[in-house]
Amino acid sequence: KFQPANEEDEVGIVRGLAWTSVGGDTLQIEVNIMPGSGDISLTGQLGDVMKESARAGISYIRSIGNRMNIPEDFFKTHDVHIHIPEGAVPKDGPSAGITMATAILSAITEKKVRADVAMTGEITLRGRVLPIGGLKEKLLAAKNAGIKTVIIPKDNQVDVSELSQEITRGLEIIPVMTMDEVEKIALYSVRKKDDN
Amino acid sequence: KFQPANEEDEVGIVRGLAWTSVGGDTLQIEVNIMPGSGDISLTGQLGDVMKESARAGISYIRSIGNRMNIPEDFFKTHDVHIHIPEGAVPKDGPSAGITMATAILSAITEKKVRADVAMTGEITLRGRVLPIGGLKEKLLAAKNAGIKTVIIPKDNQVDVSELSQEITRGLEIIPVMTMDEVEKIALYSVRKKDDN
Amino acid sequence: KFQPANEEDEVGIVRGLAWTSVGGDTLQIEVNIMPGSGDISLTGQLGDVMKESARAGISYIRSIGNRMNIPEDFFKTHDVHIHIPEGAVPKDGPSAGITMATAILSAITEKKVRADVAMTGEITLRGRVLPIGGLKEKLLAAKNAGIKTVIIPKDNQVDVSELSQEITRGLEIIPVMTMDEVEKIALYSVRKKDDN
Amino acid sequence: KFQPANEEDEVGIVRGLAWTSVGGDTLQIEVNIMPGSGDISLTGQLGDVMKESARAGISYIRSIGNRMNIPEDFFKTHDVHIHIPEGAVPKDGPSAGITMATAILSAITEKKVRADVAMTGEITLRGRVLPIGGLKEKLLAAKNAGIKTVIIPKDNQVDVSELSQEITRGLEIIPVMTMDEVEKIALYSVRKKDDN
Amino acid sequence: KFQPANEEDEVGIVRGLAWTSVGGDTLQIEVNIMPGSGDISLTGQLGDVMKESARAGISYIRSIGNRMNIPEDFFKTHDVHIHIPEGAVPKDGPSAGITMATAILSAITEKKVRADVAMTGEITLRGRVLPIGGLKEKLLAAKNAGIKTVIIPKDNQVDVSELSQEITRGLEIIPVMTMDEVEKIALYSVRKKDDN
Amino acid sequence: KFQPANEEDEVGIVRGLAWTSVGGDTLQIEVNIMPGSGDISLTGQLGDVMKESARAGISYIRSIGNRMNIPEDFFKTHDVHIHIPEGAVPKDGPSAGITMATAILSAITEKKVRADVAMTGEITLRGRVLPIGGLKEKLLAAKNAGIKTVIIPKDNQVDVSELSQEITRGLEIIPVMTMDEVEKIALYSVRKKDDN
Ligand SMILES: [Ca+2]
Ligand SMILES: [Ca+2]
Ligand SMILES: [Ca+2]
Ligand SMILES: [Ca+2]
Ligand SMILES: [Ca+2]
Ligand SMILES: [Ca+2]
Ligand SMILES: [Ca+2]
Ligand SMILES: [Ca+2]
Ligand SMILES: [Ca+2]
Ligand SMILES: [Ca+2]
Ligand SMILES: [Ca+2]
Ligand SMILES: [Ca+2]
Repeated sequence: KFQPANEEDEVGIVRGLAWTSVGGDTLQIEVNIMPGSGDISLTGQLGDVMKESARAGISYIRSIGNRMNIPEDFFKTHDVHIHIPEGAVPKDGPSAGITMATAILSAITEKKVRADVAMTGEITLRGRVLPIGGLKEKLLAAKNAGIKTVIIPKDNQVDVSELSQEITRGLEIIPVMTMDEVEKIALYSVRKKDDN
Repeated sequence: KFQPANEEDEVGIVRGLAWTSVGGDTLQIEVNIMPGSGDISLTGQLGDVMKESARAGISYIRSIGNRMNIPEDFFKTHDVHIHIPEGAVPKDGPSAGITMATAILSAITEKKVRADVAMTGEITLRGRVLPIGGLKEKLLAAKNAGIKTVIIPKDNQVDVSELSQEITRGLEIIPVMTMDEVEKIALYSVRKKDDN
Repeated sequence: KFQPANEEDEVGIVRGLAWTSVGGDTLQIEVNIMPGSGDISLTGQLGDVMKESARAGISYIRSIGNRMNIPEDFFKTHDVHIHIPEGAVPKDGPSAGITMATAILSAITEKKVRADVAMTGEITLRGRVLPIGGLKEKLLAAKNAGIKTVIIPKDNQVDVSELSQEITRGLEIIPVMTMDEVEKIALYSVRKKDDN
Repeated sequence: KFQPANEEDEVGIVRGLAWTSVGGDTLQIEVNIMPGSGDISLTGQLGDVMKESARAGISYIRSIGNRMNIPEDFFKTHDVHIHIPEGAVPKDGPSAGITMATAILSAITEKKVRADVAMTGEITLRGRVLPIGGLKEKLLAAKNAGIKTVIIPKDNQVDVSELSQEITRGLEIIPVMTMDEVEKIALYSVRKKDDN
Repeated sequence: KFQPANEEDEVGIVRGLAWTSVGGDTLQIEVNIMPGSGDISLTGQLGDVMKESARAGISYIRSIGNRMNIPEDFFKTHDVHIHIPEGAVPKDGPSAGITMATAILSAITEKKVRADVAMTGEITLRGRVLPIGGLKEKLLAAKNAGIKTVIIPKDNQVDVSELSQEITRGLEIIPVMTMDEVEKIALYSVRKKDDN
Repeated sequence: KFQPANEEDEVGIVRGLAWTSVGGDTLQIEVNIMPGSGDISLTGQLGDVMKESARAGISYIRSIGNRMNIPEDFFKTHDVHIHIPEGAVPKDGPSAGITMATAILSAITEKKVRADVAMTGEITLRGRVLPIGGLKEKLLAAKNAGIKTVIIPKDNQVDVSELSQEITRGLEIIPVMTMDEVEKIALYSVRKKDDN
């Protein structure tokens, strides 16, 4: 039932955590960046809250473009496609905000994403990380999928303290307030390869 | 439950006041201005009245562009993204009109917004400020969030006089008739910084 | 309840008359004309009949552009925003046709609108003025708002004769057949000012 | 109740005949042609069948453009606005096809339309005139509006023979098979004037 | 009730066969090709299956453009309008696929369509002809309309053998597998004329 | 009932497998690539999950464009039309993902598709192949249609082992994890011909 963690670190793929009516689940967010004309594609049966969350993430990244050395016309000359597999399962809510933003940032900067990290958190236009629901179920799902490190919103830290050790044991749980912190934990530079 | 006021004054973030079925609430309106082609993005599950209100605010700002030293092609060469966090909560109504307009004006002019000010009021195309509902609940929410100064429409001043001192004590309540007055209270100039 | 008439004559603001389930009301139509690319914005929860009415008014004005000395590319190089405040209240019907057209014409030509005039009437593509409903309620609302002069469709003149003097006393009621007549009554030239 | 026939022949206005739940009615179709970029506007609460009918009429006119001396880029460099007054009344059906096409043709060629003529008939892409319903009610409405000549589809001629003389007396009823015949009856050339 | 067959062979008009709740019917598909910018118009109350069928037919024709001597930019520099008269009657289904494709091909190549031929069949992107329903009702309608030759999908040939001779007598029924065969039967070249 | 396998290998046509309420079925996916401006057409009554699946496949192909020697501006200068015949039958779900991607890849590269191969599997943006439902019904349908080789997702291999030999006998069932493997099995190069 639970997809195992990525076998190796990749660019543009980030593990998110979902909270559904039947419990927690992991979902893998894929991002492709292609030469194009500024189109944003969102596929995988994303609801409108989730789509708005993706757009907020993109605006955040555009606003820090200078600092990340992203060329000024990058978003006009490239298309961004965000896809969340298991394409028949409807997905919604804002809690994949930092996951989608991290995947996009990885795809743009070609920094690799640590495959043993999962994350959950609403993102704002300024890169603040807001609290989410279903933390217990999500942590359980992360653990079952072999995840070692989970990034959560600072405002959810209080919820962690209420969980039994059975759930949190063996998981490194890192509370964050901003996307800056997420990037430092989840992304790392690699030398560019030619053939992608 | 209540988000504390911004810790420090920022550009492009303004505290608004909402009146929901469960009482008053504060909401923080974020605006990013990016080099672009004139797109307006409105995210955070805004209803159509609220979206129209945002567009009225933008037209107002365009109409006073000369006076504010905004370059004539500014809105053709930039994208504006207005986001209201807690992205899963539907929001609607015209009462965030002056809040959104102030956030946009701050983002364009890079003037800072006083973090201890909240505001509520419908905006018209000419910058008039029209009355809103739920004033009592909104003032209560502002107070609980640590707000010191609340800007309200002049036509709501009569409602203030009917409130108990318990609500209004410690709050500076400033009635206004036009956006001009709002700007003078909430925005102040800072020297431009390089890295944003 | 009734907004008083504009204190002074302005450009691009015209007082209309509405007939709602709870009686007559006045509504103030605001128009901003901005350098742009030909976009037409209609905000304030206008229904589709009212939106079509606005578009008919604009086509009428375009068709008389030569006579009004409007540059031929004016509508390609400017955006028009029509807003009707109290943005949460749905509005519909064709009876604000001449009001919207007059506001647009004022905004384009920078002629001022007499603040003591209100008007009601459907507009056609050729500037004919067609009859409307709820005349009695509208006149009452105009009177209560301090309006002195009301422009009505010629085909509603018969309805006026059936009203009690209590309603019509003190109101100058001017029946018209065409937009030409409306312009002559409501608009007058002023010297251009610099700062708008 | 019945609008009288146009007092004088005009360009771009044609009298149509409608068949509603409360009997026949006349409706006046107005067309404005303006320098533009090829937009087609259809206002007056037209249903989708009626809109398709208008588009079929425009394609027909484009296909005979050479013969009518219409410049090849005419429809790319002009906007066409078709409006049917009494803008709050929903209208639908294909039977105003030849009426709309005639009004457009008049507006393009600046030929005048005979004010004492009304017409009804579905139009096809090739300018064929197809039969319509409610002939009796339409003829009655035309008569009451002071119309002298009514153009009907050839395939409705059999329906005329079944009508009582009370209805048809005093009406010239002309059956047609093609738009060519309609044009010959309803349109005539006038010298161009300057100021429109 | 049944429209007679076209009196003479024409360009861009093809007789199709429909199967409705009240039996079979013939329908005449009209196509106009005009200098333009690549717009495809589909009018006559076509359902979405029928619209997709038209688009499949156009793609098929584009894919064989070389072989048919259609200039490479033809579909970028022309507009295509497909109209099916009796514009108030909803029409749907894929069985007019080859009929629409034949009408388009005729309009592009200016080859005439044999007026005594009717046809029915789903079209695929590669020009294959797939089976349809209601063959018996359609053949009956064709016969009543004076049609001499009916083109049907090869996969419907088995259905023909089950029909009584009363239906098929006097009809030439030609089963086809591809659009190539349809073209050879229904279209023939004429010398170009000037004035269309 | 079951369409036989393609008689010969073709470019741009791939056999897929569907699972409907009445059992398994085969469906033939056709792709045309035409000089154009980057439009993507999807016809044949595809549901929104299936359309998203097609778009994911196209993004995957764009992302491997370099490796496949696809010119960088290919997708800007060509239109892609994906059609699934039997255009009246609604189709949905992600399981035709690898089938559509293979058909597109074949049409672009002009590599032929083995006519005796069918396939089923969800595709991700990175070309991973995800498991699908209804494997038993699909294999049965493939067998009845004369298919020799069926490509399935690796994650469905466990389902195969549970099937009776009656179903799998005579079928070569190849489990795959990535689109790379699908291409190697289903596509092969042929020399370009001139006339297509
Ligand atoms: Ca799962
Ligand atoms: Ca929603
Ligand atoms: Ca809150
Ligand atoms: Ca609404
Ligand atoms: Ca009011
Ligand atoms: Ca409506
Ligand atoms: Ca009437
Ligand atoms: Ca309809
Ligand atoms: Ca018929
Ligand atoms: Ca449908
Ligand atoms: Ca089948
Ligand atoms: Ca859906």
